[in-house]
Amino acid sequence: MSNILDTKSIDLSAMRHSCSHVLAQAVLQMFPDAKLGIGPTIDNGFYYDFELPRTLIPEDLPLIEKRMSHIVKQNQRFVSKNEPTAKSITFLKKINQPYKVDLAQELKKTGEKEISFYENVMQDGKVVFVDMCKGPHISSTSEIGPFKLTHLAAAYWRGDEKNAQLQRIYGTCFATREELEAHLKNLEEAKRRDHRKLGKELDLFTFSDLVGPGLPLWMPNGAVIAEELETLAKEEEFRAGYVRVRTPHLTKGELYEKSGHLKHYKASMYPPMKIDNEEYYVKPMNCPHHHMIYSARPKSYRDLPLRLAEYGTCYRFEDSGALFGLMRVRSLQMNDAHIYCTEEQFEEEFLAVVRMYLKYFEIFGITQYVMRLSLHDPSGLGEKYVDEPELWKKTENMVKKAIQHAKVPVVEVLDEAAFYGPKIDVEVWSAIGREFTLATNQVDFAVPKRMGLTYVNKDGQEKAPLVIHRAPLGTHERFIGFLIEHFGGAFPVWLAPVQIRIVPVSDQFASFAEELRLKFFDAGLRVEVDSAAESVSKKIRNAEMMKIPYMLVVGEREQKEDTLTVRNYATKTQDVFTFDAFLGKVMKEVKGRVLS
Amino acid sequence: MSNILDTKSIDLSAMRHSCSHVLAQAVLQMFPDAKLGIGPTIDNGFYYDFELPRTLIPEDLPLIEKRMSHIVKQNQRFVSKNEPTAKSITFLKKINQPYKVDLAQELKKTGEKEISFYENVMQDGKVVFVDMCKGPHISSTSEIGPFKLTHLAAAYWRGDEKNAQLQRIYGTCFATREELEAHLKNLEEAKRRDHRKLGKELDLFTFSDLVGPGLPLWMPNGAVIAEELETLAKEEEFRAGYVRVRTPHLTKGELYEKSGHLKHYKASMYPPMKIDNEEYYVKPMNCPHHHMIYSARPKSYRDLPLRLAEYGTCYRFEDSGALFGLMRVRSLQMNDAHIYCTEEQFEEEFLAVVRMYLKYFEIFGITQYVMRLSLHDPSGLGEKYVDEPELWKKTENMVKKAIQHAKVPVVEVLDEAAFYGPKIDVEVWSAIGREFTLATNQVDFAVPKRMGLTYVNKDGQEKAPLVIHRAPLGTHERFIGFLIEHFGGAFPVWLAPVQIRIVPVSDQFASFAEELRLKFFDAGLRVEVDSAAESVSKKIRNAEMMKIPYMLVVGEREQKEDTLTVRNYATKTQDVFTFDAFLGKVMKEVKGRVLS
Repeated sequence: MSNILDTKSIDLSAMRHSCSHVLAQAVLQMFPDAKLGIGPTIDNGFYYDFELPRTLIPEDLPLIEKRMSHIVKQNQRFVSKNEPTAKSITFLKKINQPYKVDLAQELKKTGEKEISFYENVMQDGKVVFVDMCKGPHISSTSEIGPFKLTHLAAAYWRGDEKNAQLQRIYGTCFATREELEAHLKNLEEAKRRDHRKLGKELDLFTFSDLVGPGLPLWMPNGAVIAEELETLAKEEEFRAGYVRVRTPHLTKGELYEKSGHLKHYKASMYPPMKIDNEEYYVKPMNCPHHHMIYSARPKSYRDLPLRLAEYGTCYRFEDSGALFGLMRVRSLQMNDAHIYCTEEQFEEEFLAVVRMYLKYFEIFGITQYVMRLSLHDPSGLGEKYVDEPELWKKTENMVKKAIQHAKVPVVEVLDEAAFYGPKIDVEVWSAIGREFTLATNQVDFAVPKRMGLTYVNKDGQEKAPLVIHRAPLGTHERFIGFLIEHFGGAFPVWLAPVQIRIVPVSDQFASFAEELRLKFFDAGLRVEVDSAAESVSKKIRNAEMMKIPYMLVVGEREQKEDTLTVRNYATKTQDVFTFDAFLGKVMKEVKGRVLS
Repeated sequence: MSNILDTKSIDLSAMRHSCSHVLAQAVLQMFPDAKLGIGPTIDNGFYYDFELPRTLIPEDLPLIEKRMSHIVKQNQRFVSKNEPTAKSITFLKKINQPYKVDLAQELKKTGEKEISFYENVMQDGKVVFVDMCKGPHISSTSEIGPFKLTHLAAAYWRGDEKNAQLQRIYGTCFATREELEAHLKNLEEAKRRDHRKLGKELDLFTFSDLVGPGLPLWMPNGAVIAEELETLAKEEEFRAGYVRVRTPHLTKGELYEKSGHLKHYKASMYPPMKIDNEEYYVKPMNCPHHHMIYSARPKSYRDLPLRLAEYGTCYRFEDSGALFGLMRVRSLQMNDAHIYCTEEQFEEEFLAVVRMYLKYFEIFGITQYVMRLSLHDPSGLGEKYVDEPELWKKTENMVKKAIQHAKVPVVEVLDEAAFYGPKIDVEVWSAIGREFTLATNQVDFAVPKRMGLTYVNKDGQEKAPLVIHRAPLGTHERFIGFLIEHFGGAFPVWLAPVQIRIVPVSDQFASFAEELRLKFFDAGLRVEVDSAAESVSKKIRNAEMMKIPYMLVVGEREQKEDTLTVRNYATKTQDVFTFDAFLGKVMKEVKGRVLS
């Protein structure tokens, strides 16, 4: 855990920020007329936007890097300086930096009296570069660690396509050469593992212009993974005492008026279908539907905790610019459930949910994770958050206490709660160190009350239950997107779309291959024979391209001796088994959901 | 089979029609001012609508029946008579029958020259009753078999709520006393088995005014059944070489423009969601989405047959007046699949689908069924049906031939095909003889072509595949509705929402009961302990009300002797087992999907 959080520490950030100033200085050396945009730090690096007399090409980057190295060696000091706003604007105009003028005038409007600058000062005291900047910076360019410019991109000034288009240069910078190299290697690996690229190569999912953006269609190979994840979730949820429900994907708007979602959530929803003087919506979440199931029959304390689970598909109208492969979509098939419980039951239920998270992490080999506890900001009460200051306090304390007992890594953030209560996002890191927000866990003290959900307690009084919203496997879309990268497309046997591929060395062994296939198939395995009119070596390459866990090349020896020569994709080894021994091994791996 | 089709024969229908005239005559005897509406035959009976000086009560029915019996004994002859239209209208006005005048004027408008009447003539030649009627009738009232008036209802004249409200009397009539009694017993049984009544009593599903009409929400008990049906379908489909896909419930309208559904199907669809200059629809069927998966990658003859399966939920905006429990709904979770094949593969694929139907019928104990082959009507070409006369002919012949080879009972009907090809509806009869249309099987030669679906055949040419649309388990909604009636709510163990209920005779045995529960639960069974503060006899009655297959009443003897006293709901017997023997028995029944 700790080393990952460390890389976000302020020192690295200051160093990267200083590196972006060095980049800007280098670009100004090459193009004295360059106009500077902004140059912030980002995860693992920095960028800077420029207006330049010509379009940069990748070959420019090493030349810029060379100039940057030179600046680093000059050991320039970073010196902070505040100037009155009006004077600053005059200065920025003078040095012909219109974008900086734009920023300064913005600050003037908000009433800023002074503007902060950082100068780069040579050892002899000469100022060679100055940028409008709040800092912080490191003290001298010589403290900058190993860096690399990674790629170019286009960017609009202030992200608005009505503004001028600038050229963006991305770079990365680390404290040590080893870290930089590991990062660059991870970047390469991330490209190879890109879920959009592998999704296509492995035939997992597709998009259709006729169906619409952000609405993935799961091909047979991808549907296998979704199916296996659902089976896992259903098994675990059955064991944990959940019951399942099924609810329609549509509802009248009235339901969301009553739940309060229309007020707080409408911007993220598909627009209504209007018919018979009613407005119908596709559901952006399952909770109000589940609440209708809860309230369909009177409840007593004996009925609680009630855990209603559904792999419900929800629809959210994400901005088309925000859509990204499976990671940002408009259809979300969620591993959803709502736990209705009393206050006394809350902690136990919450901890059981955390245990379920941990079990899944183990199954998928996720070793790095953190819980991000989002709390409300009292200034948003009545607007962004339901106006119940006392209940917010009480519930947040209850959640904090429960998390402490769960003994899992946690960070707290303000003003990111759900409108009805505190939210716990679970962030995980993939095998190559990329961060994903996978699962959510929310505590809702407001909507159940609002919708009139009750139970009769031991003393015969009507009370509103608490509701825990939880989705440990998140959505199929995002979780499978994560798994593709995490496993680099080489899924463990139980998840692999095709578990075994049989390659007969010639047509002569086609019927033997088919016999074998049927034996595996009858055991419930996903197995296929490659009977294409291609060479054996081509077929072997194809099976490897598809990252199929086990490949059996079968010919005379296999047929005569009743043995199997098995190529293992994960270990890159080849072993000889009897049929029964191999089937036993595979079945054990599948049933045990063993990681390869 | 045959006896069921026989009950629809024309003789019975004529007899029932005559019986409705006898009913009208009897009502006129009681209320000489009665105005007659219409009096057709219906499945298993007849009705007649009247405008009467007072509202009828159920106690009136035996009095009317008595008069009817008297009329039957009078052996009145039915005599047909045609009169010129104008003269008929004058006559109907004279006898003060305004609704009949209305009907006659309607006929006049359509250019009818003559109107047909039937008179009831006494043995002495006296005419005692006359009704405007096309017939046919039996020759005399004495031929009327045993009859019974069953119930009252309100009805608008011509079914239009802007018209006058009339009173409707329903009756039934059979050739023999035995048939009438069997039918009345079935009616009683059907009331007891009504899926809406049992759905509520057994907590299977619910509707919510806030969610909307025709959109059932599956409660935990009902979701168990849906889940088990899906598991069954997935197992069978895996064995039959299907692969699964998953597609969104939404699509841009463009997809349906291309598929032709918007033209042929729009009236049954929810209206569009309009956003970003696009119209999105919730899908009324899965096929166009599956076609997009088919066409996402190039296909060769080696890829066929390709069988894409999905338990997809579709939405159809049925008229609110047509909605009926689970049997007529707006959300349809379908056991859907599309088989893409060549013409040569068609028959084998079709027969495999029929085999799957037969297997399901066996599993559910469905012994009576018929395939209803819907063909196109050439006069609808270009309108209701795609304008491909030759392909219609060819495909219909292909289907007829395949059905012959399947050796299943079949009836042919004209002008009920899908717009893209012939359709086979599978009609089944429940255990109490009620008919349900469960499953469909359609052959599509038009849409694949229209959407540009192709495969490359052995000669390197591009061809369009045939598509078989099939849904052997229909929709969850309708199939579970059927099963509720078919099993009268007493589901076989594998389908039962709760398989075992444990009733401790006192609190003293609560922990023993819980121990037992865990042992069954660990084996994957759905088991619960009734720990309510009620008497044992009340708990036994409750378990019986819920039709739970096995009930274990546990007390001192069970705890000491390690035996179980098991009450079997289906057989109404009580047996003693060791734990292992009972668990073994139940697991065998569950795994074998044994009928109780």
